[in-house]
Amino acid sequence: MSEALKLAEISYKNNDVPIGAVVVLNNEIVGSGYNRKELLKDASEHAEIMALKNAAKHLETYHLEDCEMFVTLEPCAMCAGAIINFRLKKVYIGAKNPRFGCCGSNLNLLSHDFNHKTEVEFNILEEECSKILSSFFSSIREKK
Amino acid sequence: MSEALKLAEISYKNNDVPIGAVVVLNNEIVGSGYNRKELLKDASEHAEIMALKNAAKHLETYHLEDCEMFVTLEPCAMCAGAIINFRLKKVYIGAKNPRFGCCGSNLNLLSHDFNHKTEVEFNILEEECSKILSSFFSSIREKK
Repeated sequence: MSEALKLAEISYKNNDVPIGAVVVLNNEIVGSGYNRKELLKDASEHAEIMALKNAAKHLETYHLEDCEMFVTLEPCAMCAGAIINFRLKKVYIGAKNPRFGCCGSNLNLLSHDFNHKTEVEFNILEEECSKILSSFFSSIREKK
Repeated sequence: MSEALKLAEISYKNNDVPIGAVVVLNNEIVGSGYNRKELLKDASEHAEIMALKNAAKHLETYHLEDCEMFVTLEPCAMCAGAIINFRLKKVYIGAKNPRFGCCGSNLNLLSHDFNHKTEVEFNILEEECSKILSSFFSSIREKK
């Protein structure tokens, strides 16, 4: 998760909501991503999607059944759907997202009746993951 | 929808499940997409995502509140989530997807309690949209 936090800092510097994600296979990072929504003016450029695409490219397959993801903020519906499509084994989450989180907070798509289910574990470096987000939103308010 | 069907034919020729999508603003196509999952070995390369990304690039914004989508098959969780993230006004759907469809069949994410809701209408050229899919799956079975 500390690697995902480093990626979130890249988003922060780009004036994007600081969210980072890594995909891991056998204790090795095979895909990295950070939120680039504002940078690329594209609402699909979330950290999780970038990390999944990079992992699929690196491993030359979209079957990521043996891979796990570490992500600093609970994935939204789009990203939870992508996690199912790539058939991830497990997702470790830093901060919860009560409004948009689809891994247990607002909805749980990961355990829903689709063709694949993904395990989930919360509270991984939760404090650090929440802190970078609140710091970002405070700085936005100050600028205004 | 006939334009979306033409795009689905590109997927068919690439040995991808034939699904096509267009994003429309003021009766003009501003984004086109077709399923490229097998072509690019990437489970996020659905027709809807490609069409949304193209529309955002073309319009230089991810706020697509005035745009509508025509898609030949009911969107999955990932694509329904993307439709919400890009804040589409309405989605017109050809064929239903009882197993994975997240616009009313398995789940309805478009009317769920997120920050945006998208209208949905089914049965637009439903017969043609179903036919291209069943033709594709028959040809796959024959090859086997």
